[in-house]
Amino acid sequence: MEVGLVEMSVFLRICAILFLVLTASLLGSDAQTKLVFYLERKATFRDLDALIILVYVESGAACYYLLQVCKSPFSAWFEGNLKWPSPICLAWVCFLLDQAYITFAANSAALESSLFAVTGEKEFQWMKLCNRFTRFCIQIGGALLCGYVASFLMAVISFLSAFNLFRNYSPKRFLSLKEK
Amino acid sequence: MEVGLVEMSVFLRICAILFLVLTASLLGSDAQTKLVFYLERKATFRDLDALIILVYVESGAACYYLLQVCKSPFSAWFEGNLKWPSPICLAWVCFLLDQAYITFAANSAALESSLFAVTGEKEFQWMKLCNRFTRFCIQIGGALLCGYVASFLMAVISFLSAFNLFRNYSPKRFLSLKEK
Repeated sequence: MEVGLVEMSVFLRICAILFLVLTASLLGSDAQTKLVFYLERKATFRDLDALIILVYVESGAACYYLLQVCKSPFSAWFEGNLKWPSPICLAWVCFLLDQAYITFAANSAALESSLFAVTGEKEFQWMKLCNRFTRFCIQIGGALLCGYVASFLMAVISFLSAFNLFRNYSPKRFLSLKEK
Repeated sequence: MEVGLVEMSVFLRICAILFLVLTASLLGSDAQTKLVFYLERKATFRDLDALIILVYVESGAACYYLLQVCKSPFSAWFEGNLKWPSPICLAWVCFLLDQAYITFAANSAALESSLFAVTGEKEFQWMKLCNRFTRFCIQIGGALLCGYVASFLMAVISFLSAFNLFRNYSPKRFLSLKEK
């Protein structure tokens, strides 16, 4: 693996970590209290299951990326010295773990449930919330935007690790390694 | 491109088309009418925006896959005779279009909004629906399951097209094609 690809991938991973942490902390710190019909009501991200799941998913992804970034200075050593797992095994593991599907799905689920809070659902008598908890909703919107930026970066990273894995294979025969 | 990869990818695409069509038709045909407080109420997939979007996304994906399956008998001809777009351009286009992120996200958003229909959200006074519209909800559950199977197949197809693209590149230098 030459320097260009490693450096690009580390840079992208650090950007992704920043956006993941930003998303999780924007969501985690989001709370607003309002008087509704003489009752004090507090809206937090814990009211919507999708937002709780999103916080956990983004935090987990950030930890995994941090591990990957910490690993990368030693990757040349891994490739030279390691007998098992072989570099191609490691590339397969990275490729499978780097898939951004879970964060993308968690983001979309959170977006969907937040949209209910914005628009309500008249047919089902689900009332809208964002006319009351405006600041709360805007902060969630910002968090989701950061989450999508992070997902996009993660998709690019998954392309890079697919590139890093599959270019070791022969263009002629299926799933056979090429001679160096 | 040898025969094994083309055949596997066509087989997977046909399976994915079947599951996509099954999802869309299960959702599209889902409707239940019930008497609620002496008023007749009808629940259809059109009540939830996420389900409408899912029907469109799955139908679009099925059409795209059908085009790809129709194209594949001619792919040998494309690779031999076409000057522009070159086979590597075509492989890039397939790789980018084959990404399963959109169906996966649409599925998760639909799952999230359906979960509200199952559990309700007491804090926000969103009432649950599935105790009344049981058959309707079970059919949606089946549709979402088929949708996830389709998404999984699409993810495998996207791995195959990544393999088909990136194995043409050199394992030594970044983004340079290897000599045949």
